[in-house]
Amino acid sequence: HNKVDIECLINGEYSVVCRRDHDEVYLPFSFIHKYFEVYGKITPADGIYDPRGTFATFENYNVEVRDRVKCISGIEGVPVSTQWEPKGFFYPTQIAQYGLAHYSKNLTEPEPRVKIIDDGDKNLGNWIVSTDATVSREFDTELKSNILRFTTSDQASSQVWCKVNISQDFVLSLDLRLKPNSSLTVVLQNKDKKETVYLHYVTSLQLIYALDDHIYYGIGVEHKWRRLTRDLVTDMQKGWALLDKAKRKSPRNKFKISSIILMGEGSAANIRVSTSEHMAHFFAAARWLVSTQRARGGWPVRARRRVASRVPDLRAGWHSAMSQGHGISVLARAFHRSKDVSYLRAAQRALHLLDVPSSAGGVKAMWMDKYVWYEEYPTKPPLFVLNGFIYTLLGLYDLHVIEGDNSISLAKKMFDDGMLSLKTLLPIFDTGSGSFYDLRHFTLGVSPNIARWDYHATHVNQLYLLAGLDPDPILINTAKRWEGYMQGKRAAHN
Amino acid sequence: HNKVDIECLINGEYSVVCRRDHDEVYLPFSFIHKYFEVYGKITPADGIYDPRGTFATFENYNVEVRDRVKCISGIEGVPVSTQWEPKGFFYPTQIAQYGLAHYSKNLTEPEPRVKIIDDGDKNLGNWIVSTDATVSREFDTELKSNILRFTTSDQASSQVWCKVNISQDFVLSLDLRLKPNSSLTVVLQNKDKKETVYLHYVTSLQLIYALDDHIYYGIGVEHKWRRLTRDLVTDMQKGWALLDKAKRKSPRNKFKISSIILMGEGSAANIRVSTSEHMAHFFAAARWLVSTQRARGGWPVRARRRVASRVPDLRAGWHSAMSQGHGISVLARAFHRSKDVSYLRAAQRALHLLDVPSSAGGVKAMWMDKYVWYEEYPTKPPLFVLNGFIYTLLGLYDLHVIEGDNSISLAKKMFDDGMLSLKTLLPIFDTGSGSFYDLRHFTLGVSPNIARWDYHATHVNQLYLLAGLDPDPILINTAKRWEGYMQGKRAAHN
Ligand SMILES: [Ca+2]
Ligand SMILES: [Ca+2]
Repeated sequence: HNKVDIECLINGEYSVVCRRDHDEVYLPFSFIHKYFEVYGKITPADGIYDPRGTFATFENYNVEVRDRVKCISGIEGVPVSTQWEPKGFFYPTQIAQYGLAHYSKNLTEPEPRVKIIDDGDKNLGNWIVSTDATVSREFDTELKSNILRFTTSDQASSQVWCKVNISQDFVLSLDLRLKPNSSLTVVLQNKDKKETVYLHYVTSLQLIYALDDHIYYGIGVEHKWRRLTRDLVTDMQKGWALLDKAKRKSPRNKFKISSIILMGEGSAANIRVSTSEHMAHFFAAARWLVSTQRARGGWPVRARRRVASRVPDLRAGWHSAMSQGHGISVLARAFHRSKDVSYLRAAQRALHLLDVPSSAGGVKAMWMDKYVWYEEYPTKPPLFVLNGFIYTLLGLYDLHVIEGDNSISLAKKMFDDGMLSLKTLLPIFDTGSGSFYDLRHFTLGVSPNIARWDYHATHVNQLYLLAGLDPDPILINTAKRWEGYMQGKRAAHN
Repeated sequence: HNKVDIECLINGEYSVVCRRDHDEVYLPFSFIHKYFEVYGKITPADGIYDPRGTFATFENYNVEVRDRVKCISGIEGVPVSTQWEPKGFFYPTQIAQYGLAHYSKNLTEPEPRVKIIDDGDKNLGNWIVSTDATVSREFDTELKSNILRFTTSDQASSQVWCKVNISQDFVLSLDLRLKPNSSLTVVLQNKDKKETVYLHYVTSLQLIYALDDHIYYGIGVEHKWRRLTRDLVTDMQKGWALLDKAKRKSPRNKFKISSIILMGEGSAANIRVSTSEHMAHFFAAARWLVSTQRARGGWPVRARRRVASRVPDLRAGWHSAMSQGHGISVLARAFHRSKDVSYLRAAQRALHLLDVPSSAGGVKAMWMDKYVWYEEYPTKPPLFVLNGFIYTLLGLYDLHVIEGDNSISLAKKMFDDGMLSLKTLLPIFDTGSGSFYDLRHFTLGVSPNIARWDYHATHVNQLYLLAGLDPDPILINTAKRWEGYMQGKRAAHN
């Protein structure tokens, strides 16, 4: 190969790693994107939006790889955010987006490859058992499946392990029931560098811990069956991030799973490795939403949030219309797939705070006492963030449709009210060459907050989606004009 | 001189007359202005606005030289517009601007030079009288001044004339009373080309007529004293425009007044030539406003106006809040200067239509049923033009102050209501890099109508002016931010 990484000096000020191929030098788009403030994504929705289908363009989202995701928690199986709180916290919007992204990917990606390690039946793992360890197989009435029981001694060398050699797929899932001080360890090896990484899933409440080549995830301390579904590469990268190791781009093709190790005492079953397990991730998000919902139907955000200068911070415990709306979108889909009414009830409960003013702990603002706005950030005065409002409308639409088209539902009324607000106020978000992210210039009297191109592209995608649901020409015309702005077509002056 | 006019070919498409000086070529700013869409004027208001003083930055306006001004009428002494009606019509906004520009110039320009041709007293013209003509002098009790009576025969050669030689100043004024078929003629000569132009002021109702070197203005047919004040260069240029003669730029320095000729039968008095007669022009506008005001206090616009696609045309007879406001600004100043209460009463009557909805022939629109807007163009739906609204506010302010600061006047209430609307809605006119001319994108759902740079500069000047009257920081902050936009400082994106 003649392709080499070279350092490119930008204006003599800083450097960017570029690719050289003979006489041509290739600059990374991530740099061009920021430097020239251009955008590189527009995914027009194809077909009419359906609450049973993909959510907006979320099949393109990879929530877990974001820097502000500390890791996927071992107990709940949902992302933990560090966006406004370095310790990490459960951010309901992010968890719902994680669910919606995996739900959408499940519909758009090809069928995953599945490699069964041990199903207790036709495919049995070749478990190597230390002399002071034991294994046995039996039928479990709770799981309704054959399981593998194991014990090892206190000796570090005492283990039950299974050699594997999987280098294309990295999502491990299994049923696991561990006694205290037991663990499951997955060994990953870098094929080039012979580097070895140990991912330990341990009986503890600690979120994540990393030391040298060892990364630990707590999976809880109760002695009960739990289904563990882990994207091993994500788990490895989040551990590296903790260690401040240089982030390696797409290392999937450099690694292989070389072994799975059981230690302590417990049982395992239905062990497999897949290209993806999107629905497992989706339902982890849905279960989290049901289990953490509060009496008023909300998912409070447990982090203080500085939104804008001149506006008091949102204090930990605030609600977001976007969390509520995204939560509803997840729960509506979970009900659709599972027919479990607890998801539907949770979605309906989540409506309540959309009708509670921000001043009373809810998320409702009014434009000039006339038009309701569901606030992504319920500040006083309100900000009227556009993208979060539209996502909330989608949640309302999802619930209404999933409830049954003939119902006269609260969700439908809230959706209709919100659409009236949107169709009325949408022009005020038009800059003539782009869009405003919010209306803080109106409510705070400050300089306008122009949407950067990726948010503008989000606005365009959202409007195309809504234009498929509502024939009012303001939606399709604005979507087209705003898409034109991305191609440099500006509004005329007089 | 080495400076020559050359023809510059622009993109091989069309040509522009430029100046060459040795190796340098100078392009006219009028071309650069349009071609690059740059602006070249910003006149920050100095000092606090005073209704007795200059109006905004109107001392820079030259209403009569605009192409869309057909001429200054001989009877009323006010401009006649061809903007939306090729025949010409009295456009109240333009007439008021003519008055306000001259009022402002009177305050800012140096004292004019005055050359007395004949005052019937110390300075007597050297009149040359044909053998079949007569002149006599007597005291006129109406004018309270010595006058010159004249008669000439039907012969074309029969005349009373006075040789003059004035080459710096071109505003002629005199008292004149003519019997039918009589005229005053002013002869202008081009010093370079020996070209002669004859300006005839004749007893007719015709606005303007031109044939070869003869230009005719009707000054009415009644046998009564009238004071005629004519900018001879303007009168000559408007005649040339009718003849489609190539427009000569600033020919003042190439011409001289060579003689004044009286024919027919009549009287003349107080004949003089000045650098300017701004207050005469101002009071011509004020008198026109008083004499043409209708019962509801309006100055209807007698021309059909196409405002925007998707909006029904304004039919001839529509009212404009800008006409009403500018009219009030003229009349308030006329009352201040003359103490003639008929000006004050007319100004007060002009308020009425500001409180009448556009749908009922007035100019009032409401923003979301809450905020009043005085409409420059009272379309259905409304457009919310910004600059015309602010000019209307200035009219209200002018009247309120001139009425006496302690009065609880209707003008004050209307001003306060309008200022509340302005301070509330001003942010919606912010594009993040300029300003919107109006809010048609909101009311019509069309592409926004961005203000071109000279209108944006007008917005900035207007806001600086209002910021001197109202301490609300939204005014001064917006003025500064919008001025920054003209220097390329755009609002940040998120
Ligand atoms: Ca957002
Ligand atoms: Ca205007």
